Amino acid sequence: MYRTHNCGELRLSDAGKEVTLSGWSATIRDKGSLLWIDLRDRYGITQLVFDENYTDKKLFDVARSIGREFVLQATGTIIERASKTTKIATGDIEIKVTDLRILNAAKTPPFTITDDTDGGDDLRMKYRYLDLRRPTVQQNLFFRSNLAIETRKYLAAQDFVEVETPFLIKSTPEGARDFVVPSRMNKGQFYALPQSPQTFKQILMVSGFDKYFQIVKCFRDEDLRADRQPEFTQIDCEMSFVHQEDILNTFEGLTKHLFKAALDVELGTFPRMTYDEAMLRYGSDKPDIRFGMEFCDLTDVAKGKGFPVFDGAESVLAICAPGCAEYTRKQIDELTEWVKRPQIGAKGLVYVKCEADGSLKSSVDKFYTPDDLKVWAEKCGAKPGDLLFLLCGEDEKTRKQLCELRLEMGTRLGLRDPKRFEPLWVVDFPLLEWDEDEGRFFAMHHPFTSPKPQDIVKMESDDHKVLKSMRADAYDLVLNGVEIGGGSIRIHDRDLQARNFKLLGFTPEEAEAQFGFLLGAFEFGAPPHGGIAFGFDRLNSVMNGANSIRDFIAFPKNNQGRDMMIDAPDGIKQKQLDELGIAVVPPPAAS
Amino acid sequence: MYRTHNCGELRLSDAGKEVTLSGWSATIRDKGSLLWIDLRDRYGITQLVFDENYTDKKLFDVARSIGREFVLQATGTIIERASKTTKIATGDIEIKVTDLRILNAAKTPPFTITDDTDGGDDLRMKYRYLDLRRPTVQQNLFFRSNLAIETRKYLAAQDFVEVETPFLIKSTPEGARDFVVPSRMNKGQFYALPQSPQTFKQILMVSGFDKYFQIVKCFRDEDLRADRQPEFTQIDCEMSFVHQEDILNTFEGLTKHLFKAALDVELGTFPRMTYDEAMLRYGSDKPDIRFGMEFCDLTDVAKGKGFPVFDGAESVLAICAPGCAEYTRKQIDELTEWVKRPQIGAKGLVYVKCEADGSLKSSVDKFYTPDDLKVWAEKCGAKPGDLLFLLCGEDEKTRKQLCELRLEMGTRLGLRDPKRFEPLWVVDFPLLEWDEDEGRFFAMHHPFTSPKPQDIVKMESDDHKVLKSMRADAYDLVLNGVEIGGGSIRIHDRDLQARNFKLLGFTPEEAEAQFGFLLGAFEFGAPPHGGIAFGFDRLNSVMNGANSIRDFIAFPKNNQGRDMMIDAPDGIKQKQLDELGIAVVPPPAAS
Repeated sequence: MYRTHNCGELRLSDAGKEVTLSGWSATIRDKGSLLWIDLRDRYGITQLVFDENYTDKKLFDVARSIGREFVLQATGTIIERASKTTKIATGDIEIKVTDLRILNAAKTPPFTITDDTDGGDDLRMKYRYLDLRRPTVQQNLFFRSNLAIETRKYLAAQDFVEVETPFLIKSTPEGARDFVVPSRMNKGQFYALPQSPQTFKQILMVSGFDKYFQIVKCFRDEDLRADRQPEFTQIDCEMSFVHQEDILNTFEGLTKHLFKAALDVELGTFPRMTYDEAMLRYGSDKPDIRFGMEFCDLTDVAKGKGFPVFDGAESVLAICAPGCAEYTRKQIDELTEWVKRPQIGAKGLVYVKCEADGSLKSSVDKFYTPDDLKVWAEKCGAKPGDLLFLLCGEDEKTRKQLCELRLEMGTRLGLRDPKRFEPLWVVDFPLLEWDEDEGRFFAMHHPFTSPKPQDIVKMESDDHKVLKSMRADAYDLVLNGVEIGGGSIRIHDRDLQARNFKLLGFTPEEAEAQFGFLLGAFEFGAPPHGGIAFGFDRLNSVMNGANSIRDFIAFPKNNQGRDMMIDAPDGIKQKQLDELGIAVVPPPAAS
Repeated sequence: MYRTHNCGELRLSDAGKEVTLSGWSATIRDKGSLLWIDLRDRYGITQLVFDENYTDKKLFDVARSIGREFVLQATGTIIERASKTTKIATGDIEIKVTDLRILNAAKTPPFTITDDTDGGDDLRMKYRYLDLRRPTVQQNLFFRSNLAIETRKYLAAQDFVEVETPFLIKSTPEGARDFVVPSRMNKGQFYALPQSPQTFKQILMVSGFDKYFQIVKCFRDEDLRADRQPEFTQIDCEMSFVHQEDILNTFEGLTKHLFKAALDVELGTFPRMTYDEAMLRYGSDKPDIRFGMEFCDLTDVAKGKGFPVFDGAESVLAICAPGCAEYTRKQIDELTEWVKRPQIGAKGLVYVKCEADGSLKSSVDKFYTPDDLKVWAEKCGAKPGDLLFLLCGEDEKTRKQLCELRLEMGTRLGLRDPKRFEPLWVVDFPLLEWDEDEGRFFAMHHPFTSPKPQDIVKMESDDHKVLKSMRADAYDLVLNGVEIGGGSIRIHDRDLQARNFKLLGFTPEEAEAQFGFLLGAFEFGAPPHGGIAFGFDRLNSVMNGANSIRDFIAFPKNNQGRDMMIDAPDGIKQKQLDELGIAVVPPPAAS
């Protein structure tokens, strides 16, 4: 070893010992006759001291030649520090250096290696090896490593077996777009990278593994948003002989364990809400219930009073922003522009101020009497000092828009404390989702999700309304408005699975070609089973009140799917293309 | 839950309790008025009993309708068994069934779900979901899951951090062939799946992570042998501020821990052997040292006596097979054919029998006197009753051939007990390996391996002999003749790395294009570092004395790289090809 101790472990009780430390020069303070270097490694910082009064001149010169981020090996004696500090764990001591070796020099980093770095996103991604030296980024990855350990500890104690499922599988058109891998040995054929180990974990249940889990990479070739990555990590789980209730309890247990172990936070029993109720009250299947501001349906009372905008709308919905009656014209105009942005897409924003004196003032005074407005305010439970915001239009769209406004107001009013954690099970998701573009139903969760037993009869209906009303044994775990997990009870009956494929527009031949192995497996004694998958990147991020999953991924890709550090993807050699029997179309301009 | 208990946990002390169990009908015995079903789940087997004297007729009829591998839910009372068995943990009790539900029927499996199944390899791979029900296969995967847990436990306790490295990286021509992934967002460009996280773990050392590990899938698009898979799993590790000695000690510790925890086997201190010595004594860099039969070099004493075959050979090498002097003509002829097979490629096999009476009898009596043969026998330490085998030819080839013969004789003589474990560190590997076909040097380990400090001066030589004599700080962990791990101290100096790339035939531009990020990282304070990777599949297999890694992979691929169960790889839709901007060349006959 290049060290006898690390930079975080020496204490005053070690004084007098001769030690060797290795690490990076974090800060250097040169006061002429005295020179200090903060030596940093993963474990902490220890101060090295050089003093003209006792340090050998040659050694002092070496010390003086050192720049930021040099890699050093220092030998010396631990002495008590004159000016102690409690900022670092080793703050009572320093090392009187007797030997110093430069193990590697360093150029000046292009940005500072500090939490409040001056490096922009692109620069930090290109020099990710330096970005990863920043304490906050390291802490994030240590947190993640520990969270994986705690996940495995909990699940293993509950008899879950970790089984590795393959990465080179088969492309299926259902779900998101696959990344594919051309096969050299089977030319013209392709593997696909798994979007999830879904069918394999079901196969493991058929094989009698009973309780399976895996912390596993998954892949989706989708256009990337800020919180999406082409490769991401799941805690993937499946259990046999269970009902939905058993799964919710097991993974509520896991979640509580992780919060306790990693954050020392005790979560109470998780509330539950049906999908319908969540849409009704929050316009979202992943409501942030850290704050109220629930939806108030004013359709009945707002329509028919001669205001053409409301009269022509399917729904008129409101939220009540507490204490916002004093919002200025400018503030309200700015919010109006905010909801009219294409990302939200509202046509306009109606407000009602509930003044402190009890009077009501709205942007639609022309069409509504004070009594009308009073009815609205009462329906919404508004108090003097509150501000109602109303949106209207087609019901589904309006709910989505109002949901965005609610979250924005929650943020603006400081109601979304990242240190408070409010989990919520959302249950009873619809089985099917109509896709307008493709003119067919898609599985809302995935094609293996079981309808609720009482809804199975509806599968034979031709009526879209009946089909849309079918509910599934599907559930999401939502935390602070973020979906951190989702799953379902699966179909385990061959015929029911075949009927479900048919509903989703598969011909029997297509179903057989793509999922024949699963349908086959169901004929040989498939147990009732169900499962869940947690988004591990997102779980890390939510638990730390962070906005982006990138902060918890060692080597993330940017929005163009590029790894800026290694500069991937990249061209490959013609020889490789030839071996694979594929060609680039059109040929790249230059190779 | 569909059960109150599992099928492995009930004991006589539970007698009288009412319980519900779920599982598969493993065996059914129908004696007319009495019927027993062995109900199986992952945890064990519990016997269900139906008796015409007390079982409801309708229930009895249901029981009688049940076939093998049906999924059942049975409720009843635990009673003491009349004829107890110690073969299963629940052998003292049975369940007097009062309610029985068929949760899923099953077709008759195409092979028996037993350890000694009648299913052939292809059939079992196609119906892998049934094959995975066989107790021995399940045990293998439970062993693997546990081994991963123990690996993480040990490494985490030693401050190793598990960091996930990316799967979508960049293709590099060095090493084996890459699997590539066309990029849709960057048309004409490709990701590659990692052959190992090598550069990323080195980057993590540059970032100060100090101790990294990961249990991680890796990918190589190579033609497959029995013990190779296109995707395989590594325990991948890297440490900073270490010398080779530190790494050997750390991972000797890990290996000992795994053997103790998983097999209750105590391994002593691992012996070490240089690469040169291993080649000299065993003709292999991964010698099986469970038995002797070491090489004896007879070149000096066998040449120059008028036997043209030996006289024209570079080397004449022997092994002494203990107690084999009584081998018949037929046995020796058969071994001669065996070494002449193209896989071995020897021209012939010379033998010397050391008879019990002290006389020597050889296949080359015409050319050698009894005294000549006596010198051979003495050099080889042969005793009366032993049999010498001699091979000759070009030194390197002869060593390989004799190595194969030695292993074969070890197997035939029962000297390779799979329950005995003999680890060995092989150290001081050559840095470079000459590739005759490409007419250039390749890195024997990989291009990031550090030459031994005293050999760095040799890098500037033009003399192939000097270059070939360079040794690296590279090491393999060998167990019972199988390489289970390998690693090296890495280069951490930018200039040394650049010189090494040059030696390997990279132009500066190529080195920059492919590994610029690593060379760049080395300029910003790279610490001395090194690491190791264990083949996790192989480790599992060797620890269980198994021949194939497939037995320890849940969903392995066959020799054509196919997953027989899901039937992958497969064609993809033209739309997918179009989106990716690639075409299949030549177009497949049918889509």
